[in-house]
Amino acid sequence: MRIGILTAGGDCPGLNAVIRSVVHRAVTHYGDEVIGFEDGYAGLLDGRYRPLDLNAVSGILARGGTILGSSRLERDRFRAACENAPQLAKEIGFDALIPIGGEGTLTAAKMLSDAGLPVVGVPKTIDNDISSTDRTFGFDTAVGVATEAMDRLKTTAESHQRVMVVEVMGRHAGWIALESGMAGGAHGICLPERPFDPADLVALVEERFSRGKKFAVICVAEGAHPQDGTMNYGKGAIDQFGHERFQGIGTALAYELESRLGKEAKPVILGHVQRGGTPTAYDRVLATRFGWHAVEAAHRDEYGKMTALRGTDITMVPLAEAVTELKTVPKDRMDEAESVF
Amino acid sequence: MRIGILTAGGDCPGLNAVIRSVVHRAVTHYGDEVIGFEDGYAGLLDGRYRPLDLNAVSGILARGGTILGSSRLERDRFRAACENAPQLAKEIGFDALIPIGGEGTLTAAKMLSDAGLPVVGVPKTIDNDISSTDRTFGFDTAVGVATEAMDRLKTTAESHQRVMVVEVMGRHAGWIALESGMAGGAHGICLPERPFDPADLVALVEERFSRGKKFAVICVAEGAHPQDGTMNYGKGAIDQFGHERFQGIGTALAYELESRLGKEAKPVILGHVQRGGTPTAYDRVLATRFGWHAVEAAHRDEYGKMTALRGTDITMVPLAEAVTELKTVPKDRMDEAESVF
Amino acid sequence: MRIGILTAGGDCPGLNAVIRSVVHRAVTHYGDEVIGFEDGYAGLLDGRYRPLDLNAVSGILARGGTILGSSRLERDRFRAACENAPQLAKEIGFDALIPIGGEGTLTAAKMLSDAGLPVVGVPKTIDNDISSTDRTFGFDTAVGVATEAMDRLKTTAESHQRVMVVEVMGRHAGWIALESGMAGGAHGICLPERPFDPADLVALVEERFSRGKKFAVICVAEGAHPQDGTMNYGKGAIDQFGHERFQGIGTALAYELESRLGKEAKPVILGHVQRGGTPTAYDRVLATRFGWHAVEAAHRDEYGKMTALRGTDITMVPLAEAVTELKTVPKDRMDEAESVF
Amino acid sequence: MRIGILTAGGDCPGLNAVIRSVVHRAVTHYGDEVIGFEDGYAGLLDGRYRPLDLNAVSGILARGGTILGSSRLERDRFRAACENAPQLAKEIGFDALIPIGGEGTLTAAKMLSDAGLPVVGVPKTIDNDISSTDRTFGFDTAVGVATEAMDRLKTTAESHQRVMVVEVMGRHAGWIALESGMAGGAHGICLPERPFDPADLVALVEERFSRGKKFAVICVAEGAHPQDGTMNYGKGAIDQFGHERFQGIGTALAYELESRLGKEAKPVILGHVQRGGTPTAYDRVLATRFGWHAVEAAHRDEYGKMTALRGTDITMVPLAEAVTELKTVPKDRMDEAESVF
Repeated sequence: MRIGILTAGGDCPGLNAVIRSVVHRAVTHYGDEVIGFEDGYAGLLDGRYRPLDLNAVSGILARGGTILGSSRLERDRFRAACENAPQLAKEIGFDALIPIGGEGTLTAAKMLSDAGLPVVGVPKTIDNDISSTDRTFGFDTAVGVATEAMDRLKTTAESHQRVMVVEVMGRHAGWIALESGMAGGAHGICLPERPFDPADLVALVEERFSRGKKFAVICVAEGAHPQDGTMNYGKGAIDQFGHERFQGIGTALAYELESRLGKEAKPVILGHVQRGGTPTAYDRVLATRFGWHAVEAAHRDEYGKMTALRGTDITMVPLAEAVTELKTVPKDRMDEAESVF
Repeated sequence: MRIGILTAGGDCPGLNAVIRSVVHRAVTHYGDEVIGFEDGYAGLLDGRYRPLDLNAVSGILARGGTILGSSRLERDRFRAACENAPQLAKEIGFDALIPIGGEGTLTAAKMLSDAGLPVVGVPKTIDNDISSTDRTFGFDTAVGVATEAMDRLKTTAESHQRVMVVEVMGRHAGWIALESGMAGGAHGICLPERPFDPADLVALVEERFSRGKKFAVICVAEGAHPQDGTMNYGKGAIDQFGHERFQGIGTALAYELESRLGKEAKPVILGHVQRGGTPTAYDRVLATRFGWHAVEAAHRDEYGKMTALRGTDITMVPLAEAVTELKTVPKDRMDEAESVF
Repeated sequence: MRIGILTAGGDCPGLNAVIRSVVHRAVTHYGDEVIGFEDGYAGLLDGRYRPLDLNAVSGILARGGTILGSSRLERDRFRAACENAPQLAKEIGFDALIPIGGEGTLTAAKMLSDAGLPVVGVPKTIDNDISSTDRTFGFDTAVGVATEAMDRLKTTAESHQRVMVVEVMGRHAGWIALESGMAGGAHGICLPERPFDPADLVALVEERFSRGKKFAVICVAEGAHPQDGTMNYGKGAIDQFGHERFQGIGTALAYELESRLGKEAKPVILGHVQRGGTPTAYDRVLATRFGWHAVEAAHRDEYGKMTALRGTDITMVPLAEAVTELKTVPKDRMDEAESVF
Repeated sequence: MRIGILTAGGDCPGLNAVIRSVVHRAVTHYGDEVIGFEDGYAGLLDGRYRPLDLNAVSGILARGGTILGSSRLERDRFRAACENAPQLAKEIGFDALIPIGGEGTLTAAKMLSDAGLPVVGVPKTIDNDISSTDRTFGFDTAVGVATEAMDRLKTTAESHQRVMVVEVMGRHAGWIALESGMAGGAHGICLPERPFDPADLVALVEERFSRGKKFAVICVAEGAHPQDGTMNYGKGAIDQFGHERFQGIGTALAYELESRLGKEAKPVILGHVQRGGTPTAYDRVLATRFGWHAVEAAHRDEYGKMTALRGTDITMVPLAEAVTELKTVPKDRMDEAESVF
């Protein structure tokens, strides 16, 4: 069998672990050939690929990034190519395609699958917001990075008697904010799923200070937003060229709290540090298992599906099911978090 | 309501996070009182306890160990006390008991429950070998520590052209060896569940060296053992007093491989480093959720059960079910691991 | 002897290690009493202090922040108090004062010393910019945090084919940028000591991309600034209340590079994460040694000085010498760094 | 100019950073060629080398180990080759040799230098025991690993009410034990420089327990040894083949303490974990500076010397001076450490 593999979308710790696992299982167990397309779907459309043997994946398990590169999808070109997908596979010469990526990548994978290509998807997102799988690799690493930052910020917030507003990733779903906020002992968490009223945060911080506590840490997802009418938000910063630049909720909220509390409040925007670097052990194991099961699925001719974690098992779920809706933070998880503020 | 809490058995990162969570949920949400027994069941039997309010659990989320202390169970005294358990609760004055511990602790919890005490257990083991729950807190931290050690050992093994045998915890179940071996990229994994033949490891290492690789790392659970007749094992080391000291499988296996391969093989025994220190974000979140749900169960009068992770949910399972059999590594998990050696 | 101790100024990993060391040496070796003033000089002026015995400093070695609290100096009140310093010492009852702090704190210490108080200073700054000492504790931790962030950013910069501008601390001296930039493998470093021309950075990045490299990381000290006329800088961002907010050089430079390069450039502002949390081993050792030698100096009646690292030795240098000028990055250190861009 | 470089002796975090720095400075600034000999001096004698350009050293700054490999010196063959050293350089074609290594490597470097080869040494040892330089790279990383282990062990020692004996590296000099013991808050430190009496450790531990402390951590260098007649030490363990195996001081001391105290005492042998993996920021900076200055020295024809850290400067010291005597821990450093037990 000849298996093609590609990585698409944003960086995510664990991508290399999937690639390594696919190559090991396919080559050692089945005697397959594996080729890696460069820069995501672009490499597939351009026919840019290279063979991946055991040596090619040696030493990459613990490394962040992806040895195959990534790129954004050129939608129009991709759509055109879809019509001709099986022909493309024949020309390049591969029997199964394993695209590793997030919602966009998997939607594209579904289009290829619908067009007749034998596709097995592997879900990837640090945001943990893909339905049908309990967790995705990369998420644990992102939560770990954010938690360590909050551990560090707490001592400095305390010594300065300050409020810190830590903005973490999560545009549409607040999983990173929820779990790093819980693990980092934040005193307030703002999620995209639940518009917040800054007055509640003010009350919460004031209550803390009234108990003699000298600091507070608020963890806010980049996609969190205030309830209508509670706060002036959305006006960007003006850069040195006079252009308006998007000003994130972390910064806006820190200014709001500082103004209402009459107390220093500092934004800390963790940004891309959450996406890079060596994956945690958890993410390496999950990524390795996903790769293994993707190869198994290909050898069972189980196409049009993606790998998913359910409890402790890896199962296969239809791509259609995976991309229909975002997995957001349910109310009861937020209730748990609130109890330890 | 007045809730008693205790921690028993070996150290496990996350114990303090459970204590903190129980206190926060009980005090803030329900207006309960919480008391903490000192040194495990000993504190219960002796009536040694202290009140736990929000201040008492401030700043402990990220700390290893347990602020309540722990101790081994004095079985006979405990059995005698069981007969009188409800009376004990009445004298000390508590309405529910939340013992946090491993198999022994939960078995004791079941005895107290059978004797009429309102008990909600919280499972704890770095070994991840308790049935009925997908994972236990402490395990992720232990796997992380062992993985980081293997990351470091690989570069030094390579520069010295050596075989390293890394012994990790896991007396009866090989979960730590399995997951840290996978995450650390070990070239062989030995589990208690599957007696090994050193000849297989020799073959595996020789095959690596024949491919030009300059080192190998073998990850072995402390409870792993050779197949009958394949290796002389069990003879202890003699200490300076002439007493025989148990010599672990890691050391014995390193000597065996060195002798068979004619190549340096060094044992590294990670030991208690795996049990201590700050918990990972994953373990802090799981521990916090367990604490929260234990309080909820108490307020629902759902006794004789313990908290458990099933998929992404925390559920309650009967103590009886939890302690009947050990959760060991199934064959298909080992197959996955072997594919990336 | 009765020794007073206080911590003043911004947070700095290692403060607790100094406090612990002072108490251990003074109490165990000399049988001294130690008292800790709360919230910096404020506690001294208010007479707010508490006794510090071995138990009071147990378990704090590895903890960030300061158990004594800190605060900004109230200059006028302090100046007034200085006139009366020996009287203050007599009233409160202490024989020597050990203030731990940065330039402002040490200047204040010198004023107290000049007024007749027996003072031994301990220098503290994550910026490493105090003259007369080779290094200060806190600096190694800050550099470590910034380096780890750059390690992580590199993989994500590469996968996104982006320029990352990482702003680190250092208002007047660029030590953190220099060393974390070197250790993190930055491709450009901007220091307060050497105004930069963005055109040079543009050239450097374009040269990299022309060699097939897919990303670049620029490390910039918060106090770095462009050469006159090379870049429009200094216009703040407008917050949601219409107030102008200072916009740091990291953000401005990222916008500038993005505009000139026609390529995505993202700012990452590490901020207070660099100041908090557990100190590195290096900083714990240095802080412990400083504490030890401060007590020794007090017992030798060697006042008006501060502890300093010179090579591998701890020596005492006059406070006057320490606060006259800032230690900035010399040209040859910058030359070294540039060679590995 | 054509510069040869090699790495010899045991693994040490920072080797790759030196290699990278040499290549960057030599190639970019001077337009030199650099060749890397494989497996230490063996590659020099065999004429096994490869060209090192900027691409060859890309991405290795943060990686442990050495991309050039290492090996033990074959003394006889080396001695014979020395007679002919300038001829060897001519045949292979290089103008300067930069060997990076510890005492043995530098002694060999001196022999080559004496034989007329233009040599610039770079000192390397995690043990920090090379005279003439304040510190060596690798040491900070080793101390960091050992300190983190002690941080973790403390919580578990406390919960088990145990004595932990942590054996760290350092055969002839106790620097790692000294600094990791100080940083990790050990309650006793045993160095090769100062034979210990186990009775003193027993007294120290008993005093702790009498003050209500529940655990103790003793940090012992692998080369520490008891005073004559105070403890039966030196009897090895017997392996499964009946061969005597060296039993380290950590294990022997734990048994001794357990026997004398009547309290559980566990050995933890950190071993090679201290030698591998990613270097700390400190070590990356020092290694990079050493590489830079080695190239400068070669271009100044300053041969027969090695790079050295003195205060904050890198200077050149004669190889003769560097290898005459070991740098051991002086009494006053040990006095400092003892004060915080």
